[in-house]
Amino acid sequence: MPVGIIIGTHGESARELLKSAEMIIGKQENVEYITFVPGENTDTLIAKYKEKLNLIDSSQGVIFMVDLFGGSPYNASSTIALPEENMDVVTGVNIPMLLETLAMRSGANLSDLVDIAIRAGSEGVKSLKQTLPTTNENEGEDDL
Amino acid sequence: MPVGIIIGTHGESARELLKSAEMIIGKQENVEYITFVPGENTDTLIAKYKEKLNLIDSSQGVIFMVDLFGGSPYNASSTIALPEENMDVVTGVNIPMLLETLAMRSGANLSDLVDIAIRAGSEGVKSLKQTLPTTNENEGEDDL
Repeated sequence: MPVGIIIGTHGESARELLKSAEMIIGKQENVEYITFVPGENTDTLIAKYKEKLNLIDSSQGVIFMVDLFGGSPYNASSTIALPEENMDVVTGVNIPMLLETLAMRSGANLSDLVDIAIRAGSEGVKSLKQTLPTTNENEGEDDL
Repeated sequence: MPVGIIIGTHGESARELLKSAEMIIGKQENVEYITFVPGENTDTLIAKYKEKLNLIDSSQGVIFMVDLFGGSPYNASSTIALPEENMDVVTGVNIPMLLETLAMRSGANLSDLVDIAIRAGSEGVKSLKQTLPTTNENEGEDDL
């Protein structure tokens, strides 16, 4: 079984992010999510994460993918992951991060997969206009 | 009215990302979202985006925040934004991007806000273990 993933966000976006990713690359195994709704707190979230940990195979390690550095989903997962050598928390979860990490899980160890998640998540952020070829600037220049 | 924002993703995560952001920083104005469900295509999405454009004040510009470079929500919004000087598309939407962009909208122009979105979205991606102070490496060294 590949490295386990548990997505955790404010509100219910963790569930929908997983559904969006699975809409693109198909149903995934060893992935869970938790929601965080009004009235809950970090302790509630720790209990919810632990419940999900019981549902997955964590023998190859676990990555918690959360929305925001310093938020409750982050704090709760950090409390669990900090003392565990084969667990880590990655913030700023987005679809590029999810797709790349899910696609590269097979055979990858936790540390490499965390690097993959961070790279895919941050490099997946760009703008249409800034990625356009700047044809005007090159006008009149020879092709190189 | 600040720069308008329209979030668009595969599935229904756009709606939940906005709700998660509003759970943290409160209800926002001049922000809309579209979903993308099975059976729809890029043309459907263009129509849905245009419907949302009619609901917002676009006089200061519009940023489409989408999940994935090259996906249908990206392609549809790019078709609309490409010929418009005061519109752009930013990919890899996540909660750090949404929070920072929404917080900084007041008085910001489109170009600056796109830069803010990209920086917040990419810098919001990090890991718990990699951000820990590396105390062991500094053991025995004097404080500098």
